[in-house]
Amino acid sequence: MVKMAPDSFHLLTLYSDKLHSVIDWLAGYGTDPEGGITRLLYTRPWLQAQQALAAKMQQFGLEASFDPVGNLYGRLEGTNTDLKPVLTGSHIDTVKNAGKLDGAYGIVAGLLALAFLKSAYGTPKRTLEVVSLCEEEGSRFPLAYWGSGNVTGVMSLSDAEGKVDIDGVSLKDAMEAVGFGASSLAGCKREDLEAYIELHIEQGAVLERMGKQIGVVTGIVGQKRYTIRLEGTANHAGTTPMKWRYDALVGAAEMAVLVESMALQEGEPLVATVGRFEVKPGTPNVVPGEVDMTLDVRHTDEEKMNTFSADALARMKQIAEKRGLCITIQERLHVPPVGMNEGIMKGIEAVCESYELASMRIASGAGHDAQLFAECCKAAMIFVPSRSGISHNPQEYTAPEDLEAGFQTLVHLLYEYGYGGKADESL
Amino acid sequence: MVKMAPDSFHLLTLYSDKLHSVIDWLAGYGTDPEGGITRLLYTRPWLQAQQALAAKMQQFGLEASFDPVGNLYGRLEGTNTDLKPVLTGSHIDTVKNAGKLDGAYGIVAGLLALAFLKSAYGTPKRTLEVVSLCEEEGSRFPLAYWGSGNVTGVMSLSDAEGKVDIDGVSLKDAMEAVGFGASSLAGCKREDLEAYIELHIEQGAVLERMGKQIGVVTGIVGQKRYTIRLEGTANHAGTTPMKWRYDALVGAAEMAVLVESMALQEGEPLVATVGRFEVKPGTPNVVPGEVDMTLDVRHTDEEKMNTFSADALARMKQIAEKRGLCITIQERLHVPPVGMNEGIMKGIEAVCESYELASMRIASGAGHDAQLFAECCKAAMIFVPSRSGISHNPQEYTAPEDLEAGFQTLVHLLYEYGYGGKADESL
Repeated sequence: MVKMAPDSFHLLTLYSDKLHSVIDWLAGYGTDPEGGITRLLYTRPWLQAQQALAAKMQQFGLEASFDPVGNLYGRLEGTNTDLKPVLTGSHIDTVKNAGKLDGAYGIVAGLLALAFLKSAYGTPKRTLEVVSLCEEEGSRFPLAYWGSGNVTGVMSLSDAEGKVDIDGVSLKDAMEAVGFGASSLAGCKREDLEAYIELHIEQGAVLERMGKQIGVVTGIVGQKRYTIRLEGTANHAGTTPMKWRYDALVGAAEMAVLVESMALQEGEPLVATVGRFEVKPGTPNVVPGEVDMTLDVRHTDEEKMNTFSADALARMKQIAEKRGLCITIQERLHVPPVGMNEGIMKGIEAVCESYELASMRIASGAGHDAQLFAECCKAAMIFVPSRSGISHNPQEYTAPEDLEAGFQTLVHLLYEYGYGGKADESL
Repeated sequence: MVKMAPDSFHLLTLYSDKLHSVIDWLAGYGTDPEGGITRLLYTRPWLQAQQALAAKMQQFGLEASFDPVGNLYGRLEGTNTDLKPVLTGSHIDTVKNAGKLDGAYGIVAGLLALAFLKSAYGTPKRTLEVVSLCEEEGSRFPLAYWGSGNVTGVMSLSDAEGKVDIDGVSLKDAMEAVGFGASSLAGCKREDLEAYIELHIEQGAVLERMGKQIGVVTGIVGQKRYTIRLEGTANHAGTTPMKWRYDALVGAAEMAVLVESMALQEGEPLVATVGRFEVKPGTPNVVPGEVDMTLDVRHTDEEKMNTFSADALARMKQIAEKRGLCITIQERLHVPPVGMNEGIMKGIEAVCESYELASMRIASGAGHDAQLFAECCKAAMIFVPSRSGISHNPQEYTAPEDLEAGFQTLVHLLYEYGYGGKADESL
């Protein structure tokens, strides 16, 4: 790789400092009286944030534009129009009572990276872009990745049909109310991208525990989700001897313990979780007759994910049979894992090596826009540590030096692709 | 024992037939449009049922009277006033959407037993009484055994203080609204009783499974109840590796499985139940951070109940410690077991032997008025089978021949105590 000239490092320090204040500035849009930030798709705080970001892009010399669905681009046009652009960014929407980093960090860092590069090195050879994607969380409407879904062609207007928020407002009406989507969303689709590189907080505690500043994301886990209903017989807790019980709770409990032990034995990166667990009738003096629970299984390797899930369900059925319980299993979700681009992973590692940033390869256990971009271009992600792994919560926190390390990694990588050793070739 | 003269057996058959129609007649008071019978303390259906029963008692030649709390007695005065009366009966109130047998069966059988004995044998030596106790279930007010509690002196007006129903009506106001309790409840207390003998459905499936018609109740189990809170850390189900989880659900599940296996090992009559089990946040994609559950332990032997409970809780604490979970345990209930009178048990067994009724000794896993009467006189219970152990449900059912077997057992026993071999002595 071609390293940036050291005489620009003082300027980079200034932009690194600016990172924190711009994150705080953006967090001002959507302050929630109940705590944290709530910036749901197509709401007023969302619109104000996107408009303010557009103004900030222009202020930094980027060409700002919205696509029909409300994604906001900031473009730094390159001299060699034969080369496909490299895009960075993340999503502007939040969950309810969110922290200030999830999504916002990747947008602000991308914006400042382009601003710094333009300021320090002028026009790049390859076009560089930052995007503030309109939606990823699925917090207002029961539909996630609406922003990247439209950019990558994975979604279209038909996906919005029937999607209403808690007040009964349709996604389409909400979109039109803030001035988007009136004609068609066809113009959202990008087929010209070389790569999408997303900087994001880990939302897990692996980097923190391993003492690394940078996570080089190898892939985004696939996910299978099941709902499982166990039916036994609700009975009097005093008059029903132990040997004659059909206790749905103890059966489900045996299954939850089994799933944990199987997952520990299978080893990382597999995770398996029983998250919902509803017991009926749920009173102290009645043997439980019914349990509704969920099983969530994730792995970066689709075959291993499928095999584990099938094994776990088969053993659950055995437990049900042994106990005389009726078991009903429904698959609710199957999302295949998505691998990140190996070349860009190596590029991130080269940057970390050159600038002595402690990095490690890591799988993302959560979903991200990058998994949709993998459909239409090279996709990569850079993680920074999340304190205690906490996210989707006002307590979400990343140490300033870690935020800066992520920012600088992105800057060096975009320099390499826009101005440096990879500025003249396909990645 | 002195057996009844066979020439009265034809008459007994007529009263046995009548048993079913009188049970059905009583079930007409409190028919619930949502199913079954709802006859809550001091409601209109409750009052109508008691008044109708009083009329029926008089019709059968018994002296009917209410005590100040609303318990209804039917008295068949004996010739020997030196002998203490023997009382039979059960409770008139029901749970919501109850079956027609719980409580009602013991009252109707007692009423018809006295009616038959009077009709066949005239005035007894010992006074015999039947009681329709005003309340046992605790379904309207958070207070059970209000009827027998006042008869036995275990309860007084002060126990009613602060007790309100779901509409905010106080127990005291409800009682006065139907014409009871206006001055004092002191007159409820009975210190003159020789014995209380309660005929009741088993509300369990032991007799059915063992092929017995009559259960000779040895005692009513003691009960300990605990609430247990487990606190771990709620975390992202995708980004939190298995080895770093503090999953409250899997910890609680391990405890529920442990309790079951310990209880099976301990053997009958111990039962242990985790009945309430609430998981937070309870969403498929979050590692559960909190579980609130209950542990209910019952045994006829108080020491064994205490030892089992202490062992189970100690091992639960070990599980919590091993898993890094915080555990909080609170004892909510401690009811000592109550033994039934051995002499009357033998009397019931003698009847069963004489009349070739298949009987077995059985512990009651549920609470009954008899456990309160054990405070002030000899107490005993006779059980008949419950189909599939179902009770507190419109599906509650006992085969007609089993209902008649229980009725006839009671008749023969009351004959023995009122007219026969034990009619001249203390039991």
